Amino acid sequence: MNSFIIRGNFLESKNPNQFSIAENSYLSVTNGISQGISPVIPERYQGLPLIDFDDRMILPGMTDLHVHAPQFAFRGLGMDMELLDWLNTYAFPEEAKYIDLSYATKAYQGFVASLLHSTTTRAAIFGTVHVPATLTLMDELERSGLRTCVGKVNMDRNCPDEVRERDVETALRETEQWIQAAKSRFVHTRPIITPRFIPACSDALLAGLKSLQRRFDLPIQSHLSENLGEIEWVRSLHPEATCYGDAYERFGLFGGENPCIMAHCVHSGDEELELIHRNGVFIAHSPESNINLSSGVAPVSRYLELGLHVGLASDVAGGSNISLLQAMMHAIQASKLRWRLLDSGVRPLTLEQAFYLATVGGGAFFGKVGRFQEGYEFDAVVLDDSSLFHPQPLNLRSRLERAVYLADDRNITAKFVAGQRLF
Amino acid sequence: MNSFIIRGNFLESKNPNQFSIAENSYLSVTNGISQGISPVIPERYQGLPLIDFDDRMILPGMTDLHVHAPQFAFRGLGMDMELLDWLNTYAFPEEAKYIDLSYATKAYQGFVASLLHSTTTRAAIFGTVHVPATLTLMDELERSGLRTCVGKVNMDRNCPDEVRERDVETALRETEQWIQAAKSRFVHTRPIITPRFIPACSDALLAGLKSLQRRFDLPIQSHLSENLGEIEWVRSLHPEATCYGDAYERFGLFGGENPCIMAHCVHSGDEELELIHRNGVFIAHSPESNINLSSGVAPVSRYLELGLHVGLASDVAGGSNISLLQAMMHAIQASKLRWRLLDSGVRPLTLEQAFYLATVGGGAFFGKVGRFQEGYEFDAVVLDDSSLFHPQPLNLRSRLERAVYLADDRNITAKFVAGQRLF
Repeated sequence: MNSFIIRGNFLESKNPNQFSIAENSYLSVTNGISQGISPVIPERYQGLPLIDFDDRMILPGMTDLHVHAPQFAFRGLGMDMELLDWLNTYAFPEEAKYIDLSYATKAYQGFVASLLHSTTTRAAIFGTVHVPATLTLMDELERSGLRTCVGKVNMDRNCPDEVRERDVETALRETEQWIQAAKSRFVHTRPIITPRFIPACSDALLAGLKSLQRRFDLPIQSHLSENLGEIEWVRSLHPEATCYGDAYERFGLFGGENPCIMAHCVHSGDEELELIHRNGVFIAHSPESNINLSSGVAPVSRYLELGLHVGLASDVAGGSNISLLQAMMHAIQASKLRWRLLDSGVRPLTLEQAFYLATVGGGAFFGKVGRFQEGYEFDAVVLDDSSLFHPQPLNLRSRLERAVYLADDRNITAKFVAGQRLF
Repeated sequence: MNSFIIRGNFLESKNPNQFSIAENSYLSVTNGISQGISPVIPERYQGLPLIDFDDRMILPGMTDLHVHAPQFAFRGLGMDMELLDWLNTYAFPEEAKYIDLSYATKAYQGFVASLLHSTTTRAAIFGTVHVPATLTLMDELERSGLRTCVGKVNMDRNCPDEVRERDVETALRETEQWIQAAKSRFVHTRPIITPRFIPACSDALLAGLKSLQRRFDLPIQSHLSENLGEIEWVRSLHPEATCYGDAYERFGLFGGENPCIMAHCVHSGDEELELIHRNGVFIAHSPESNINLSSGVAPVSRYLELGLHVGLASDVAGGSNISLLQAMMHAIQASKLRWRLLDSGVRPLTLEQAFYLATVGGGAFFGKVGRFQEGYEFDAVVLDDSSLFHPQPLNLRSRLERAVYLADDRNITAKFVAGQRLF
């Protein structure tokens, strides 16, 4: 079922600064794995069924490295505050509603339907503190065919009662039950250890999460150095830590042996960047969110030069839009204003770099994902840009650039994840 | 024909900082003019036909105060340069194609179709230097029912031969012929004097344009203080001028008696702002363009506090998107990054302010436009946001905020200009 030939115009990243473009070419897929692109169908694959996408663009599926599923319900709302006030005013009250499973089901169905019809094929997702709702979210995701990591959120201090764990012992017991349930029920929807962020997690909770992480060999996701007030708060809560990242590191929750995503890293200093580099932490760059919450702009082209792992993220609902094409636009735009207004020493992101972040940069968290080269899992989205009026011929790079600024879900006409066609 | 009652949820600006919201109300229109909103149908209008938009949002039509019609063809492309290189690499070569009337017709039909299906009801538009193509653009606009000012562009120096006037005498003769033709052929598509910008216009050309402006009593549009390199160039070309704006003022092309739009004003100093204020010049704030071309961000909330006329603009193709909802988003986003990265003394724009710019701010250039109050021309767009998934009830302000971030042409289900229903 997952072996076939695709024909069309392929565009992928060769490296952060270059596209690899193959017009009117063939890609062979066997058992969901790419066998590479060729100008004609290789002889040994000539028996496979051919799916012909004519003049359409075929891009690697994109990875959303940080998104809050329960916040999808209020995306595009409450764009008038900075992070800490925004959490208390909008995010936490909304997340409290997910104790009601019927509300959660309705809301998560909307989220998954929207994610399914975006360019995203893989995602690292925050749920809420509630186990039943998080399992419901995972049910919906598993059914969609997307491949994701999903976290039941852990938080036991500095937050309203409605979204706070009862106590550390209960939190860890429930988290363990959730991990067991997820492991038994899902194949493509994997649990990920998810302390919300340092200000909302006691030392005892973090230590307990480390035990669970080790016992079940799970990846980790959290937030890091997003907002200046948040960083100051972490400093006052943990004067012993050399930087915000070190506050996770002290509990073994900052990469190293364990795959780890830290969202934002807008204001990471040299020491924190060194720790990120050493521990192979993935940075989830969330440009629209960082704009909307007036957090600032991460110096992403510098991070790429330093050889850090960086992926792209919608961070709904700090970001309003689930589309990673829009996130590419916002990443480029934010980097230009950072260059113009703050620091001309860090170059704006190019289209090539933004595309790399959205495909290879985040895809690497999921293994051999984000390219079409032989041996990679075949994740792809097919873009039909014929509805985007233009009176002149355009080359493929230009068609991609236009799509970043102008395409929406109407232009996404097919999608594959690990060789499975989702629509 | 242009007398009727509209029912629905009305949202308009009371002032730059407040909405006026009337849910489930009635607006009476006679001969294209609003007679105001009321909770029930006024007795004297009870004979008029009722158009019921149920739970939909009804907003004043929006004014795009600065857009380049010929650049629509390459919107979303070439986002990798600053202004002066971008003009030479992308804009001028594209504009040169409009000497070919069949290309121009095809391209302008695409532009007008897109503008028609946006929230824009009024616009101030740049054509190219070519008279036949500009008249074709005006033909298409007149047929659309939109109400616009359109300029044949004038430029006779510092630009490629293909987009340069042959000589001043020819330029002025052709411009006069164009004005005469436009005045005889169009009712709702008015000519506007359009020197491209100071670097591209000789003194003799500017003086001649002033004569035409005076003789035909026309409004004026141009560009001002968009980019630092451009401003330096103007200073070297016109050392006698006290500021960039003064270089127009010396030719009588900077407001005062004559309605005048200046696009951008990103880097206007106090002296220029004083001149803008004194002369009642309209500033066309073009946030996406100013981001994409790394120009910077105009301090718009300060301009509003100073009591300047400010409207919103897509500035396609510096801006990629013709949507003024998107322009509102970009205006808010750009102002947040300006506040965070550059100057915490100028507050970010609120949703209320961005909406005011898009409706009242620019609408005032066209007269009593941009509000629903009695005596205003009835320009309106009807937004059906039911496709924007949400699991919870939302008030009207929230529905508008979401629409700014998430709505597209699919959500615009009806449109009226001066009482005429366009779809």
